[in-house]
Amino acid sequence: MDEHYAINPGTSALLTDLYQLTMLQAYFDKGMEDSAVFEFSSRKLPSTRGFLMAAGLEQVLDFLEHMRFTSEELEWLAQSGRFSRDFIDYLDRLRFAGDVHAMPEGTIFFPPEPIMRVTAPLPQAQLVETRLINLLHFQTLIASKAARAVLVARGKGLIDFGLRRAHGAEAGLLAARASYLAGFAGTATVLAGFLYGVPVYGTMAHSFVQAHDDEAEAFEHFANTQPDNVVLLIDTYDTEAAAEKVVALAPRLQQEGIHIKGVRLDSGDLADLARKVRRILDDGGLTDVRILASGNLDEEAVRNLVESNAPIDDFAIGTRLDTSVDVPYLDCAYKLHEYAGQARRKRSTGKATWPGRKQVFRQSGPDGHMGGDILALEDDPLQGEPLLQQVMRAGQRLHPSPPLSEVRQYAAAELARLPDHLRQLRVEPPYTVSIATTLHELADAVDRRTSVTSSL
Amino acid sequence: MDEHYAINPGTSALLTDLYQLTMLQAYFDKGMEDSAVFEFSSRKLPSTRGFLMAAGLEQVLDFLEHMRFTSEELEWLAQSGRFSRDFIDYLDRLRFAGDVHAMPEGTIFFPPEPIMRVTAPLPQAQLVETRLINLLHFQTLIASKAARAVLVARGKGLIDFGLRRAHGAEAGLLAARASYLAGFAGTATVLAGFLYGVPVYGTMAHSFVQAHDDEAEAFEHFANTQPDNVVLLIDTYDTEAAAEKVVALAPRLQQEGIHIKGVRLDSGDLADLARKVRRILDDGGLTDVRILASGNLDEEAVRNLVESNAPIDDFAIGTRLDTSVDVPYLDCAYKLHEYAGQARRKRSTGKATWPGRKQVFRQSGPDGHMGGDILALEDDPLQGEPLLQQVMRAGQRLHPSPPLSEVRQYAAAELARLPDHLRQLRVEPPYTVSIATTLHELADAVDRRTSVTSSL
Repeated sequence: MDEHYAINPGTSALLTDLYQLTMLQAYFDKGMEDSAVFEFSSRKLPSTRGFLMAAGLEQVLDFLEHMRFTSEELEWLAQSGRFSRDFIDYLDRLRFAGDVHAMPEGTIFFPPEPIMRVTAPLPQAQLVETRLINLLHFQTLIASKAARAVLVARGKGLIDFGLRRAHGAEAGLLAARASYLAGFAGTATVLAGFLYGVPVYGTMAHSFVQAHDDEAEAFEHFANTQPDNVVLLIDTYDTEAAAEKVVALAPRLQQEGIHIKGVRLDSGDLADLARKVRRILDDGGLTDVRILASGNLDEEAVRNLVESNAPIDDFAIGTRLDTSVDVPYLDCAYKLHEYAGQARRKRSTGKATWPGRKQVFRQSGPDGHMGGDILALEDDPLQGEPLLQQVMRAGQRLHPSPPLSEVRQYAAAELARLPDHLRQLRVEPPYTVSIATTLHELADAVDRRTSVTSSL
Repeated sequence: MDEHYAINPGTSALLTDLYQLTMLQAYFDKGMEDSAVFEFSSRKLPSTRGFLMAAGLEQVLDFLEHMRFTSEELEWLAQSGRFSRDFIDYLDRLRFAGDVHAMPEGTIFFPPEPIMRVTAPLPQAQLVETRLINLLHFQTLIASKAARAVLVARGKGLIDFGLRRAHGAEAGLLAARASYLAGFAGTATVLAGFLYGVPVYGTMAHSFVQAHDDEAEAFEHFANTQPDNVVLLIDTYDTEAAAEKVVALAPRLQQEGIHIKGVRLDSGDLADLARKVRRILDDGGLTDVRILASGNLDEEAVRNLVESNAPIDDFAIGTRLDTSVDVPYLDCAYKLHEYAGQARRKRSTGKATWPGRKQVFRQSGPDGHMGGDILALEDDPLQGEPLLQQVMRAGQRLHPSPPLSEVRQYAAAELARLPDHLRQLRVEPPYTVSIATTLHELADAVDRRTSVTSSL
């Protein structure tokens, strides 16, 4: 019943699709261990996104370094009867020993650009597909949505409150990380503070107020016990009445040296309530008490509140961020582009891919803004900043990972370089990604080759 | 850099919102350890859902049994400076020792019915809020969507293919569990087979075909290495041409005793391609080769394909299931309804709750179908089947958990009892949930009491 606590789902090599293992058995039987090149890319932008922000590289590199089969897992695989004993022994020895090129976390990119390339013996590169997509897809999804809130918040504080309705524990933790990286001030998720060093914020729940017989008593009690972090939730019963209680309480707390830092609104018409509460607080001399708003917010709601000049200082965004509610997934894939020295591509309807080892060359526009990208082959002699950099060689990281705070600064610089209309969340005109002639030529050559061999 | 592999995020008590800990410090300071009653419920149905299916209880009970702070976590909390040393010692000893009542997994329910009630000393009941919601919310979300696909599939096979775009590892694993529970045949996620005993299915990827110089050779190679599981992906280049290759290959494999089980279509117009492929297979004598369809499917797509009599035998549903794309979250909460023997409720605009310890009494309708529910107080002497049952006492489970296959049978029986129009995924008229008079009376009494004390 508890066996699922005995293994770490994050590094288990069983965190994969069955077809990876059946394909690996076939590669093993046939000795197909030549070098393969896979790239992870998003096929197209969702209609409501003008750009995406790369995230999740750090967790992918961790996974590639640590991924292995436990003896218990191997025994279970052997008993399934699907695999040969030789192959099970081979899995026992299997480690990722390939190369990885990637865009740094926080980089802005535009489909169909790849953000990661894996070069490794075919079975290794294939096996890691599922978890690699799982990690890159989700953090990129969240960073891309969080960045939108950052752009419209105009410097107001943003906090992630989404763990409870995130899709499982890892989603909550990685959403806290990805939104911080994209420019949020922090998260309510304590474990994300412990694991990733994300600053942690918190106030109180309605249940705290309800557990007391009197709302004012609840406020005073909380202030006494958390004197450095007095943020009071004032919408449990009647928001304006509660704001008056805060004003009445403040002088008594002041005598004890306790300063009320803020109040939180979690329901109702937030702009209207914020104005009323601001007036009550100001009239009571509490001009420096901040107002934090929460409750079903997303970047559109934040933009409307900011543009209406609602006197809200900080926004907590939860469910709609952590589930990326308007775009719950990206159309992305990890595809084979070269095997045994030959370029490959898939031609399935609507899902065709560009073959070969690719690079993205970013051009500089006016005022240092991004001026268009060129998707090309790695060796093409093009101008511009190459966005994919080697980060792992033969299974070893080339550099220690940068602190998350540094990634966050880089992400902020990336957002600052976006063309103005994309910063304003407009999606038209789309950012220009040109496809180099060399890529078109290679695709044609691959099609001619596979048509011929397929029809033999 | 690797510290996040040293702890298990699934049982860490730090997998919570900071406010739980600040509130606990306050409760500790004031000795507020009286018994509290919290209930988890969904406030209202999403507009595109006629019913929900409860899931996630098993993981919640595991969490309640195992949840604790490691010494490393406690040290980190102490160093934050937010908490007293006495309180840190208290957290070190803290275990969940409360009672839990819940609807069994697989039960159909209708908001605002609670599906779980926790009765425990206030700090214990409060601390577990975040992870409890995180677990119940997600599996209920997925089981509820998966059940819709089961209802429209009319007995055709359904397989979960969603891990790669699920929101993190845990989401993929729990989605595999929840969809199997709701009636899916299985999943592609190997670790879900290992952890939960969910049947595991798999075919091959496009990269397998691409890695070979010839498509027919790829098929033959796969068949030789996985003779008991020959399902061939035929859309990498040209679907009909590939189907012809399957027909050409079959006699040779037959001589080696290898039987082709199925082919998979992953792109294009699935109904049209399935008809063409079926004809090619049938003309080639392969009438028992199954056709599996995948690629951006959800319950609407499955319904359309089934109703159009497309000759598809099995459907693999991935991303759109695991992200519950049309409804990425449920409006749900875990709220305090009683403390120290007194009923409580919240009156925030749009988020008011029913006070007290509640029970759901289900009435029997015509032909044994569900005939309407009554949300009432636990002790109300009402007719009908009480849906909440005690599953944990003083922190200990009352019964071993049922095997997942048994839960799946129970879920199927629940789906069979749904009123016909809900089985057809129509949402009107909504199922009747009446609120007992006793609940209205208690809510009024609580409001009178808190209005009086709040205005003192």
